[in-house]
Amino acid sequence: MRRVDLNCDMGESFGAYSLGQDETIMRHISSANIACGFHAGDPGTIRSTVKLAISCGTSIGAHPGLPDLAGFGRRRMDISPREAYEMTVYQLGAVQAFVRSEGASLAHVKPHGALYNMAAQNEALAEAIAEAVYKVDGGLLLYGLAGSALIRAAERIGLIGVHEVFADRSYESDGSLTGRSLPGAVIHDSEAAAVRAVDMILSGEVISRQGTPVALQADTVCVHGDTPDAYKHVMALRSALAAANIEVGAPGGRM
Amino acid sequence: MRRVDLNCDMGESFGAYSLGQDETIMRHISSANIACGFHAGDPGTIRSTVKLAISCGTSIGAHPGLPDLAGFGRRRMDISPREAYEMTVYQLGAVQAFVRSEGASLAHVKPHGALYNMAAQNEALAEAIAEAVYKVDGGLLLYGLAGSALIRAAERIGLIGVHEVFADRSYESDGSLTGRSLPGAVIHDSEAAAVRAVDMILSGEVISRQGTPVALQADTVCVHGDTPDAYKHVMALRSALAAANIEVGAPGGRM
Amino acid sequence: MRRVDLNCDMGESFGAYSLGQDETIMRHISSANIACGFHAGDPGTIRSTVKLAISCGTSIGAHPGLPDLAGFGRRRMDISPREAYEMTVYQLGAVQAFVRSEGASLAHVKPHGALYNMAAQNEALAEAIAEAVYKVDGGLLLYGLAGSALIRAAERIGLIGVHEVFADRSYESDGSLTGRSLPGAVIHDSEAAAVRAVDMILSGEVISRQGTPVALQADTVCVHGDTPDAYKHVMALRSALAAANIEVGAPGGRM
Amino acid sequence: MRRVDLNCDMGESFGAYSLGQDETIMRHISSANIACGFHAGDPGTIRSTVKLAISCGTSIGAHPGLPDLAGFGRRRMDISPREAYEMTVYQLGAVQAFVRSEGASLAHVKPHGALYNMAAQNEALAEAIAEAVYKVDGGLLLYGLAGSALIRAAERIGLIGVHEVFADRSYESDGSLTGRSLPGAVIHDSEAAAVRAVDMILSGEVISRQGTPVALQADTVCVHGDTPDAYKHVMALRSALAAANIEVGAPGGRM
Repeated sequence: MRRVDLNCDMGESFGAYSLGQDETIMRHISSANIACGFHAGDPGTIRSTVKLAISCGTSIGAHPGLPDLAGFGRRRMDISPREAYEMTVYQLGAVQAFVRSEGASLAHVKPHGALYNMAAQNEALAEAIAEAVYKVDGGLLLYGLAGSALIRAAERIGLIGVHEVFADRSYESDGSLTGRSLPGAVIHDSEAAAVRAVDMILSGEVISRQGTPVALQADTVCVHGDTPDAYKHVMALRSALAAANIEVGAPGGRM
Repeated sequence: MRRVDLNCDMGESFGAYSLGQDETIMRHISSANIACGFHAGDPGTIRSTVKLAISCGTSIGAHPGLPDLAGFGRRRMDISPREAYEMTVYQLGAVQAFVRSEGASLAHVKPHGALYNMAAQNEALAEAIAEAVYKVDGGLLLYGLAGSALIRAAERIGLIGVHEVFADRSYESDGSLTGRSLPGAVIHDSEAAAVRAVDMILSGEVISRQGTPVALQADTVCVHGDTPDAYKHVMALRSALAAANIEVGAPGGRM
Repeated sequence: MRRVDLNCDMGESFGAYSLGQDETIMRHISSANIACGFHAGDPGTIRSTVKLAISCGTSIGAHPGLPDLAGFGRRRMDISPREAYEMTVYQLGAVQAFVRSEGASLAHVKPHGALYNMAAQNEALAEAIAEAVYKVDGGLLLYGLAGSALIRAAERIGLIGVHEVFADRSYESDGSLTGRSLPGAVIHDSEAAAVRAVDMILSGEVISRQGTPVALQADTVCVHGDTPDAYKHVMALRSALAAANIEVGAPGGRM
Repeated sequence: MRRVDLNCDMGESFGAYSLGQDETIMRHISSANIACGFHAGDPGTIRSTVKLAISCGTSIGAHPGLPDLAGFGRRRMDISPREAYEMTVYQLGAVQAFVRSEGASLAHVKPHGALYNMAAQNEALAEAIAEAVYKVDGGLLLYGLAGSALIRAAERIGLIGVHEVFADRSYESDGSLTGRSLPGAVIHDSEAAAVRAVDMILSGEVISRQGTPVALQADTVCVHGDTPDAYKHVMALRSALAAANIEVGAPGGRM
């Protein structure tokens, strides 16, 4: 039986500010990427999100981002590989302490937003992030864009790289995501995105915006938790996966 | 042979801002309290300070503070015990990840500034901090003002509490430190402070500002690293300890 | 005809985080207190909130708070009067620049949260804040708890102090608000609060929790914009005021 | 008699962190660019720096930067023109309030670090910054790299653009500064830099790294205040200017 991981960004609230639908979504995904306090999240939010994930049996990951709360970690910053290394160790350690203090184990790391995008393309940043994860705990999984520089860096240093696909995004012929400003970049229809996910998983490829097939390994599918339709999307995805006899579970585990 | 720990706050630089004399002082102390990024410090500074401590054979501790970089963690904030717990876990985890990634182990935790002072008096905050440390790693030592609420909370939960004394500060008859705004609160003379330290260690007491003896257990002596005379002070202290045949070493280890 | 001001905290969103119902509430109040970026708000939010207020004809004020985004400015911090002065000038200036750049004028200042509460009681902080406002622009109105230290400090230095009452809060016999942790501290019923507001305005007093009358001058009534029932509350208040023939308008102006 | 402005970044300290030699340098320059709290500076530092500038008769400018204290505003961030506009209005207003509260007037604005460099090349960012300055106060001068997009944007909207030259930096044939990572990018010798400054002012050109002449208008010369040799540099510059009969004074004023 085929199996795939469903991951979703979680714990993005901050202080008095609430964001996302963690309570609703958590039990329907297999892996939670928890914001670490740089682009979103705060110590109290990390703690409660870790507890929620544990109570739902969801696998826990750290979701480090750029130090830009005002920009939600979505604005590229010209950081050095050294800075990428350091901000990854720091954020990863902070979340890991909460996970440990609740008697669980951190399973993975997935960079957020602009850090994720930069690490998909920039070899030096990718290597710095992979090294940071490896040196903190070589047993952690590193999530990255399927086939990207980050996955390659993970595998070179001895980590397991988890290839991520986006069912609701259009791809370019080089395997990158189509920029959000272009028409058709985002697939808003739940059913269409769900069909697309199943297709990617079963065929190991996606048809790019240019019409060419792009090979990709679909270890994990990204679920967005911060849209009004998040619940509808995840349920459509789970139905389509069940119909296609694809099991949902964290990499190396099951849900 | 008697033994005492000398601890000093380290890693208080931030970005382009340099503070303290870490390079000069590190090899003359036995325990370094490394700022965790809330009141001072940043990921790059934590990393380089951890490496410096390892290269000097200095025992490493996390030095969590209030989230107040502008106030250097010295302004009391009306935080709840829950918030104290959360900010301790977070900061402790961040520093611990750097220590682990360099192949060493975190040895202790010492709260900073206003958090230290509040935890010395407020039982609920003291318990929250002790619980945070205990849940992350029950083998960590918790430093606090000798005989204070924090030491009691540490011992109640099952941690080893390390009693700290201040050789360059005047004490009140209740064992608290004399407020800095009062005359005579700080002893500026290196030799006088060194004599005072030896005296505290050997006698197990100090004479308060009120003239009464205050019993205290001097497990560790606080060394200040951010004054122009820091090097002079630590060398005077080491000389006086050597002359009194008191060995310097981290609690549970030796230097 | 009697007249009263209705003021409400506005512009409390931050980056990706949305808070409050500014669009819905703005046209029903006469004065908007705009968060300045320390406890809430950011440059983009300030700008759009200023534009919204101008389009609704609502009078604009700066709402400076403690530098504590994580705590939403609600945690007391042990700041000096000098720091209170400086953080008031800074925040006030930032908002004033947006108001000017849109061709309008800043009308008032109201401290937020813990800063408001501290300034109601602490003479030195109250004087520092009043001095900051006065030195930036002596024509600004300074809002404070009716009869409090802040109002007295405003009037001593030559500012017009605007006495604020809380229709949905219980009062103590000394004129302070009953702490939120006590039963009955908050009046949740819209109609009851509205009746209470009219009563305070017409009678110039309120009955304290202890049963004694407390004299107060009701220049402005605080409306809360961050509760689910905010719209209902403000409409109940406006109906009750209209029924009692009390006009709503900013101090020194009309709506 | 020829005249030139000498400007220097000032007020870059933050909380417990001290940076620069403001006390020493302030009286030898004609214009001070005061950090506004985003990349450096804080309300207390702004206030004391404004007072120092007034006491020295130095013309005062706001020095807005990117919201990146950890990176000192030197890391490029992918901000939108709208964000550039908003962060300029905010920071400019904050500093202006301090200047006004001390009875003086803000004279100019100079973006800092990466914001300065981006605004020199990016027309949309340059226009947004110029518009922000213009809408807050059309009488403010806008400093930018001589001949750059920022100067052009300033002049298009109706501001006076002040062309800045760097006596201690090598130029490329297109008028941009040679990247710091290239050999010869920075001229460390005080005398050589001073001679170069005089030459730029008198000839209206500089010889680029490629050996070609680059025309530039030298309205103001940048003085660096954060190097150990800052005092030596500024005194060498002043001597060379005096010897060449070039007066030092703020644009539109005199010192």
